[in-house]
Amino acid sequence: MSDSLGKLFVVISFGESHGRCVGAVVEGCPAGLRLDEKEIQWQLDRRRPVAGRARTPGSTARAEEDRVEIVSGVYNGHTTGAPITMRALNQDVDSSEYEKARFLPRPGHADYTAYIKYGGFNDFRGGGRFSGRITVSFVMAGAVARKLLDRLGIEILAHTIQIGNVEAPKANLKKVRDNAGRNAVHCADPDAAARMVKAIAGARRAGDSLGGAIEGLALNVPAGLGEPMFDTLEGELAKALFAIPAVKAVGFGAGFLAAHSTGSQNNDSFIVRRGRIATTTNNAGGILGGISNGMPIVVRVAIKPTPSIVRPQQTVDLRTITPATIEVRGRHDACIVPRAVVVVESMMAITLCDFALRAGLLPRVIK
Amino acid sequence: MSDSLGKLFVVISFGESHGRCVGAVVEGCPAGLRLDEKEIQWQLDRRRPVAGRARTPGSTARAEEDRVEIVSGVYNGHTTGAPITMRALNQDVDSSEYEKARFLPRPGHADYTAYIKYGGFNDFRGGGRFSGRITVSFVMAGAVARKLLDRLGIEILAHTIQIGNVEAPKANLKKVRDNAGRNAVHCADPDAAARMVKAIAGARRAGDSLGGAIEGLALNVPAGLGEPMFDTLEGELAKALFAIPAVKAVGFGAGFLAAHSTGSQNNDSFIVRRGRIATTTNNAGGILGGISNGMPIVVRVAIKPTPSIVRPQQTVDLRTITPATIEVRGRHDACIVPRAVVVVESMMAITLCDFALRAGLLPRVIK
Amino acid sequence: MSDSLGKLFVVISFGESHGRCVGAVVEGCPAGLRLDEKEIQWQLDRRRPVAGRARTPGSTARAEEDRVEIVSGVYNGHTTGAPITMRALNQDVDSSEYEKARFLPRPGHADYTAYIKYGGFNDFRGGGRFSGRITVSFVMAGAVARKLLDRLGIEILAHTIQIGNVEAPKANLKKVRDNAGRNAVHCADPDAAARMVKAIAGARRAGDSLGGAIEGLALNVPAGLGEPMFDTLEGELAKALFAIPAVKAVGFGAGFLAAHSTGSQNNDSFIVRRGRIATTTNNAGGILGGISNGMPIVVRVAIKPTPSIVRPQQTVDLRTITPATIEVRGRHDACIVPRAVVVVESMMAITLCDFALRAGLLPRVIK
Amino acid sequence: MSDSLGKLFVVISFGESHGRCVGAVVEGCPAGLRLDEKEIQWQLDRRRPVAGRARTPGSTARAEEDRVEIVSGVYNGHTTGAPITMRALNQDVDSSEYEKARFLPRPGHADYTAYIKYGGFNDFRGGGRFSGRITVSFVMAGAVARKLLDRLGIEILAHTIQIGNVEAPKANLKKVRDNAGRNAVHCADPDAAARMVKAIAGARRAGDSLGGAIEGLALNVPAGLGEPMFDTLEGELAKALFAIPAVKAVGFGAGFLAAHSTGSQNNDSFIVRRGRIATTTNNAGGILGGISNGMPIVVRVAIKPTPSIVRPQQTVDLRTITPATIEVRGRHDACIVPRAVVVVESMMAITLCDFALRAGLLPRVIK
Repeated sequence: MSDSLGKLFVVISFGESHGRCVGAVVEGCPAGLRLDEKEIQWQLDRRRPVAGRARTPGSTARAEEDRVEIVSGVYNGHTTGAPITMRALNQDVDSSEYEKARFLPRPGHADYTAYIKYGGFNDFRGGGRFSGRITVSFVMAGAVARKLLDRLGIEILAHTIQIGNVEAPKANLKKVRDNAGRNAVHCADPDAAARMVKAIAGARRAGDSLGGAIEGLALNVPAGLGEPMFDTLEGELAKALFAIPAVKAVGFGAGFLAAHSTGSQNNDSFIVRRGRIATTTNNAGGILGGISNGMPIVVRVAIKPTPSIVRPQQTVDLRTITPATIEVRGRHDACIVPRAVVVVESMMAITLCDFALRAGLLPRVIK
Repeated sequence: MSDSLGKLFVVISFGESHGRCVGAVVEGCPAGLRLDEKEIQWQLDRRRPVAGRARTPGSTARAEEDRVEIVSGVYNGHTTGAPITMRALNQDVDSSEYEKARFLPRPGHADYTAYIKYGGFNDFRGGGRFSGRITVSFVMAGAVARKLLDRLGIEILAHTIQIGNVEAPKANLKKVRDNAGRNAVHCADPDAAARMVKAIAGARRAGDSLGGAIEGLALNVPAGLGEPMFDTLEGELAKALFAIPAVKAVGFGAGFLAAHSTGSQNNDSFIVRRGRIATTTNNAGGILGGISNGMPIVVRVAIKPTPSIVRPQQTVDLRTITPATIEVRGRHDACIVPRAVVVVESMMAITLCDFALRAGLLPRVIK
Repeated sequence: MSDSLGKLFVVISFGESHGRCVGAVVEGCPAGLRLDEKEIQWQLDRRRPVAGRARTPGSTARAEEDRVEIVSGVYNGHTTGAPITMRALNQDVDSSEYEKARFLPRPGHADYTAYIKYGGFNDFRGGGRFSGRITVSFVMAGAVARKLLDRLGIEILAHTIQIGNVEAPKANLKKVRDNAGRNAVHCADPDAAARMVKAIAGARRAGDSLGGAIEGLALNVPAGLGEPMFDTLEGELAKALFAIPAVKAVGFGAGFLAAHSTGSQNNDSFIVRRGRIATTTNNAGGILGGISNGMPIVVRVAIKPTPSIVRPQQTVDLRTITPATIEVRGRHDACIVPRAVVVVESMMAITLCDFALRAGLLPRVIK
Repeated sequence: MSDSLGKLFVVISFGESHGRCVGAVVEGCPAGLRLDEKEIQWQLDRRRPVAGRARTPGSTARAEEDRVEIVSGVYNGHTTGAPITMRALNQDVDSSEYEKARFLPRPGHADYTAYIKYGGFNDFRGGGRFSGRITVSFVMAGAVARKLLDRLGIEILAHTIQIGNVEAPKANLKKVRDNAGRNAVHCADPDAAARMVKAIAGARRAGDSLGGAIEGLALNVPAGLGEPMFDTLEGELAKALFAIPAVKAVGFGAGFLAAHSTGSQNNDSFIVRRGRIATTTNNAGGILGGISNGMPIVVRVAIKPTPSIVRPQQTVDLRTITPATIEVRGRHDACIVPRAVVVVESMMAITLCDFALRAGLLPRVIK
């Protein structure tokens, strides 16, 4: 069965963490889009442990170049309308730790569920298909989607709003644009960013890890995207975001806070702003009845702490069904939130691009 | 484009709030399942404003019988393997208020987004396709799914955990089973239930409305359900749950709280319990790597307060793009949370049934 | 699993020959299309045994009115963008013969394969889902598709080119347009039509039945419809046409004759005609590389003789797996070719409408 | 939009004739299947111009090795349940002829339709996505499907039954098995094979080309495969077969001859053979009501003559819309029928494998 994403802009992910490569196939991209490897590489580089000048704190020591290679679907610098295949070779692979622990599932990881589902035939090395490394393929596809959204003036932004117990103050759009790219944790508030860095360092020293939360924003999304019944904009965005390993909750606009408020507080009044219909507040997160209303799409995701921690943990030996202890070594991030920011953006871009195509907003050939 | 749910167990919803009927088509149900209208009716009755003895507080005065009629796919009391079409006629329809307010979108409702998406051709009466009444079709399909899950020993339960600022204390499974069906708000804690009823009554008196939260549980789900990449169990459950009007957030296990914890707190250790692999805690909500791990599936959804409130609200006249005021009359629930409980169960059942079929757990013919 | 047709214009068929009704759900129809029951009824009437003045020769004595009822998706005489549900009640049902022969599969019918597939739970009365009566749902959906194609100037026509050994001479488009609607067998050549009528009458007298062939034409189809790899225009048209019970072969343009010719004979040279690119001949049937080239789409389908014949036939008792004899009574057409003509048109219309939507040729809202 | 094949066993094709590679992604293959590159290579080699000892007559001078490389989804010699990516690099590429003729569409080729569909952005070199070379990806996927069908005892065979005007006499199964692999044209009759070879040589000398026909057989297919309405076994097989470039007609069992026969001739009587239900004749080609009946699946496809011929042909200059002449040089087969035999088998295998999975005949994990 296909385990792909999207209906008109379709993304397939292939490859394994310690196999030959990880990659993506994108079907449904209009012909004529200018696309080169540099643009995709730029997004991939944002996902790497060392982002910009600052090295992402607490990130894995695995040093992958993640060099993207376009394998098909692009000719003379433009998309051809054919499936776009992209991949990055795996280079810095050390599977030794995994071989040892093959039958000792790591708590919080997919080792156990993968073992059950695939009868032990899954490529378990480095987490195989369940590794965070697989998100390289999401970012590749997201980079193509963003190029298409650019043409519609749709902008996608994400930023870290929480790491462990450090919560960033509510930031306006200008702050997000100006600051989130300037620190290693992609936080819109420089002070909070500094505290987040410290918190991660502390967790790492303690052999522990931290979770956090990311806010994603989509600006200039036209009203009318989303289907009324099952393929709602919320539903499809949530599905895409839950594909990111470690995401455990997704809320739109007021999110879980909506449960506490009253209708008179929560309803966003309609007004006319610069000749166009808008709302006073945005508790709906830009979505009413599963369909975009022209306001910014606002989504928040919770990311659980990295399950790999440098402490003995209780597990079960799958061969004997007896208790066992495991110490996860390998090379891991003490907090993956900062690196997930670009992944959140990528999933939003893929989903919105799919809906833009469904709504007929993009031509079949771009000229 | 198809706006259906599921890949092997496929649900289509049709009909409008004030049209002739609302209904569902279910494709992919194995042949040979005993099914009669009474069993579906029993679930539909749980969704009605008067649930059991107690009338659901603050619920709409619209008195629909919601009498299900099986139109196709069942012969001699068993499913035939053909599409199962079910419908309930609309009887108690009063569209007068809607005609008046056709061009004045109600804040918090889908009037505006539907108008934009369908160019004003949508059947706006009673909210049309965006009415809570459409969930009748979800419950119909869910009733079929539950019959199939019964065969696998999978049990689905939901209960109200919050209404407005009243939060129920954490309840164990026994309390949920014993109490949630005994009060009008479907809460596992009788005291909290009483306070929730009061809170709703207060909101109604104030011409306002309340939101809340529901917890859904799926028990005895075998390990191995869910796809590793995009069709994760979390993603598909979330997508199904966001199809319920007013759901604005979905979290699994620890949910948003996972953002606050550390890896050593959040990881669920593997243990052997009665000869089978289990986990000590269940912060993962029964899902690791997008795949069920054999522990209970635990999901929480936030439901926004009913947007229909008896107060003048600010809106925009769609004909002139000028400010206007609207007073929503119609007949509405001051809090839809209690009625949404069976809908949450239905969406969980549909999704799990789809995954059970994907995993090959159900035969093509039931004997 | 969904057994639907189309990707953007999606058709679901439900109902059984002797159940309560047969019907269709159409998803993906743009909002704002004028649609009333009369237009659908007009196409349904073309499928009935009595077509126009002349009663279709050799057709069943079952007298169904096939009165279409639009159940959802249309408001104020226009489509709303929601699923369009249509159905026709079954009225003139006599299931007595079928009950008797439940375990004696009729040669040439689906009785045996349905029994195996559904373990005997299928609604076998009147052939259930495998009855020619199910094509009522195809014609309903086709009627909606034709309305959309009308807007693009695409015309769909089919005519009978063979019944038994009577083959009609090659007819030009004018003859098809003028004559095919004027005789009971829908043949473009009046002389051949008369001989076909005779042949059917002869077969009926002999307690036998006849097959035949139909040619379908789609005119003014713009170049560019069809996908390059698997969803070719030929492949999708063929799939839709093979859904018609009794179709056993499908060929495009030269069809099977292409096997006999040489490249220099078979290639259609490109020329300029009235300022546009055309081809001198049309051996390709309007399709190159799976994509329409702007020339008429020409497809021929072979229809096997009605399997129901009034003669003792050899079969096997499914309870005992021992030889048995069956005499099919019921009420049947001695030749279904004439009634299949509108069904061929319907399947072509549905498929082309789906591709027109894929190509972005139709707006989401029709104004 | 996805242009993939299959619902549970899903095949995606990527790559271009003169790009870096051609390849396939297979999703839905159960875990635990032994699979190595040699087995795939063996099928690929059957497609190459030099098949076995005899060089396929009239085949292209392009000498591709078509060396398959498994990129993902296989670990330790077994499938892992993850997407299987395979590819073959393009090596012997000479695009010079194509550059010259970019705006002069070759008659019978997809140059014109691709140009229209993709606005000239398609990779036209060597026919790009429309090249027969793309069938390398079909054979790769087919090789995986065959391995799965092997486990069910299903055997797939195809053989050439016609080239130009040389038609092979009807062959029994033994002859097909014994002879078809022994001559360069894959014909079950050695005499006819010799005449076919001559006919191809004659066409080549004349600067012309030939079409032909292939018969595909699937043996030991269990009864019950296929869906009743739209995803019929005939419909899905036809769709898969029409994906092969140059296929213009598809018929099952009696095929187009069914149009000529009567019900009493065409009906296949049911009998008991070795304790199992069978039919006396097989005019149905093993399919009744769209569902397999346990008899051999028999399908015949017509293949048009290769459009590339060494003669001046009439075309139109796409830049000026004025008449022009083109002489196709490049390197082409004078008859592709022999090389298409393994491709026909591959498409049958893919489709039957998909239906076997739909019917639950294959486990999720093979042990």
